[in-house]
Amino acid sequence: MIIDKLYELVKERGPVCIGLDTRLDYLPDSLACKQDISIADKLFLFNKAIIDNTSDITACYKVQIACYEAHGILGLQAYQKTLAHIRKKENIVIADVKRGDIFSTAQEYAQGHFSGDFEADFLTINPYMGLDAIEPYFPYLDNGEKGLFILAKTSNPSSQDFQELVVEGQPLYLHVARKIEEWGEKFRGKYNYSTIGAVVGLTYPEEFIKIKNVARHTFFLIPGYGAQGGTGKDFSRIFKNNINAVINSSRGIIAAHKGLDETDNFVTITREKVLKMKKDISQWR
Amino acid sequence: MIIDKLYELVKERGPVCIGLDTRLDYLPDSLACKQDISIADKLFLFNKAIIDNTSDITACYKVQIACYEAHGILGLQAYQKTLAHIRKKENIVIADVKRGDIFSTAQEYAQGHFSGDFEADFLTINPYMGLDAIEPYFPYLDNGEKGLFILAKTSNPSSQDFQELVVEGQPLYLHVARKIEEWGEKFRGKYNYSTIGAVVGLTYPEEFIKIKNVARHTFFLIPGYGAQGGTGKDFSRIFKNNINAVINSSRGIIAAHKGLDETDNFVTITREKVLKMKKDISQWR
Repeated sequence: MIIDKLYELVKERGPVCIGLDTRLDYLPDSLACKQDISIADKLFLFNKAIIDNTSDITACYKVQIACYEAHGILGLQAYQKTLAHIRKKENIVIADVKRGDIFSTAQEYAQGHFSGDFEADFLTINPYMGLDAIEPYFPYLDNGEKGLFILAKTSNPSSQDFQELVVEGQPLYLHVARKIEEWGEKFRGKYNYSTIGAVVGLTYPEEFIKIKNVARHTFFLIPGYGAQGGTGKDFSRIFKNNINAVINSSRGIIAAHKGLDETDNFVTITREKVLKMKKDISQWR
Repeated sequence: MIIDKLYELVKERGPVCIGLDTRLDYLPDSLACKQDISIADKLFLFNKAIIDNTSDITACYKVQIACYEAHGILGLQAYQKTLAHIRKKENIVIADVKRGDIFSTAQEYAQGHFSGDFEADFLTINPYMGLDAIEPYFPYLDNGEKGLFILAKTSNPSSQDFQELVVEGQPLYLHVARKIEEWGEKFRGKYNYSTIGAVVGLTYPEEFIKIKNVARHTFFLIPGYGAQGGTGKDFSRIFKNNINAVINSSRGIIAAHKGLDETDNFVTITREKVLKMKKDISQWR
């Protein structure tokens, strides 16, 4: 099952997930100013260089589709090529699409992101519309090849607007987390974690611990490290000996070369940043 | 302002919004079996025929991006052409994308769906992540040219999973509706409705009336008519003399010709269906 593979990769390489939220201003000048190639190729070549130089020290990649939708068809061609390249190298790719819609529409999203041009291994999903907006993905989970990460407590300040509203004495995000654990029950792998995981931000460690206590068979995708404020120390408070999580960093890794002496070899800086992040995460345990 | 234009179009043409949730099996055989044209062209030509034969009796169109993402790059080329065609004819198009993500990511979505290849007039947005996931769209609203419809109470059965959880004595969807009304305050047009509207399903009329009472300057996008169970009678219970809403039908209109004697002239059936829906909505008032 894909969740078993991810768990094993975390054991082998550490929990770092590189977020390919690629923006044009992250490109080194040598690539940004290149003549005769399209935006699609520029974005893809940047991502490819990062992937080729980090895939041995990275649990997985998360690709934020918004950064590609921003550039229309050409952007999505870069998105397509990026996902295909990650999968060709037998790395795991999480498509950060945060989709959420009624049953018949979710079937279309499932087809679009679990097969064809945009095929990914995991998708992120928004829970606001409830179970029947999530069930259409289940047929792709049944054979163990695909997985979901459903938003529980997100990393942004305004996540408090609704996610922290109190329902029967407990915040909404805890009710969502319980549902994620429940929905995931029939999709558990050999390490007892489900292919239906949860997105929980590192920016709220107290809340994270509460979630972890009600979602004991749930694997976590964790945004909010670095630029958003989460630290390796926060991570170590939540995960001690057993790490059933991947922790994402985007800007902090893929834009680390900006402002430095830029060379064609920006990926050495990228790689150093990943290793530094791994150290930051492991030093506290 | 775009919301004023929409309000006027509803007055002039009635509140019907045609949902272009186009699936390949909706195409008439004459188009489906055509040789030498791509899926992109097939989907677009189907949509174009509908648009060209209904734009005088329709308030606006809603295009469900999932149905195009399902076919990858070619699908999105059809999506792009469909949006451009609607806008070229000076009709209003709502991109049903239901996006929702943190500030920096929402900026990318706003760029992607309010400019460039996928430019639309309105976007649907998911509220689960709170205000800072919505603010990045505001710069596009400031000059009055663009608008949002934020999910409040959706039309699907599982909308009860979270949207009906009780917070301080009231269901979550009412808290969301109040926030939508509040966020929309600074974007009100000359009829006193905001360019930040709400999505509320017709399938829950009682709940709709509660929402309408707390969101008095909010314009509504209403799914759930027809195939999902909502009726013209339901609509008339909610909206009496003043209609600050558009009511969407997708399958019920664009797939109405299926199973009948199919001809190249399927759009006559489409047009009849729109007129029938208009009658069903107006007969109760």
